[in-house]
Amino acid sequence: MADEAPFQLLHSEVIQYIYKSAEGETESGRNVTKLENIGFRVGQGLIERLTKDTARFKDELDIMKFICKDFWTCVFKKQIDNLRTNHQGIYVLQDNKFGLLSHLSVGKQYMEHAPKYLAFTCGLVRGALSNLGVKSIVTSEVSVMPSCKFQVMIQKA
Amino acid sequence: MADEAPFQLLHSEVIQYIYKSAEGETESGRNVTKLENIGFRVGQGLIERLTKDTARFKDELDIMKFICKDFWTCVFKKQIDNLRTNHQGIYVLQDNKFGLLSHLSVGKQYMEHAPKYLAFTCGLVRGALSNLGVKSIVTSEVSVMPSCKFQVMIQKA
Repeated sequence: MADEAPFQLLHSEVIQYIYKSAEGETESGRNVTKLENIGFRVGQGLIERLTKDTARFKDELDIMKFICKDFWTCVFKKQIDNLRTNHQGIYVLQDNKFGLLSHLSVGKQYMEHAPKYLAFTCGLVRGALSNLGVKSIVTSEVSVMPSCKFQVMIQKA
Repeated sequence: MADEAPFQLLHSEVIQYIYKSAEGETESGRNVTKLENIGFRVGQGLIERLTKDTARFKDELDIMKFICKDFWTCVFKKQIDNLRTNHQGIYVLQDNKFGLLSHLSVGKQYMEHAPKYLAFTCGLVRGALSNLGVKSIVTSEVSVMPSCKFQVMIQKA
């Protein structure tokens, strides 16, 4: 059995819990924000533990590579499949088999549920970067499940 | 770095989230129930995946041994250290270094926070047993952190 099952199942239950306790509220955007905030704090804690004994990062790209390899492997037991950048502060991380989507059925009718399964991870990346001194905006995009992309826009000070 | 870090950190954030969103409410018991319910559903999902290919269990004790070994290892990366029973439907599972408590400081002043860090796991065990057809009540007890005991009382039909 996959090691990440407890994490995946807990993640799903957190989504159910947040959406259920907000039933009747009109703004569903607030749920996404809540999930993003939880992810942010988990990301902060995780990167702190992960970088405890690592050497200083050379630059922004070096940090992004660490997120794609070590950080991603720690959480999702695989690396990011593709990292692209425009060298002007935008990075696109592509995961071809994203663990937190893999239990959702493939099919257009489920696409509308994808954002709530990605909000936590957007926060996770933003939290990790933030603790490394990099302020960012992280958004996500699904075209064909369970593949997805996270776009990181670095916010210059 | 420990593999269970993402799970542990997410678990902590769920506790913070639930307690924070209930601020001002008088009944703190409701938070423990919420955590227990989340644990219950994670336990159900997990045992389903874990027992997919296992042989039928011989008896109740056989089930409890599976919880102490395979199930515990899947979630906490270690086995239960001690299992006792009165052979009349009561089982005591002792974990001498419980992962979800290990980040709390040792000291009497923190003891009051222990129950909220155990509620999820009580539900986890109850959910797993429930999916195996065993109805139970699960309670927890901490004497010296990070050691703790879970008492399972089987409810005969």
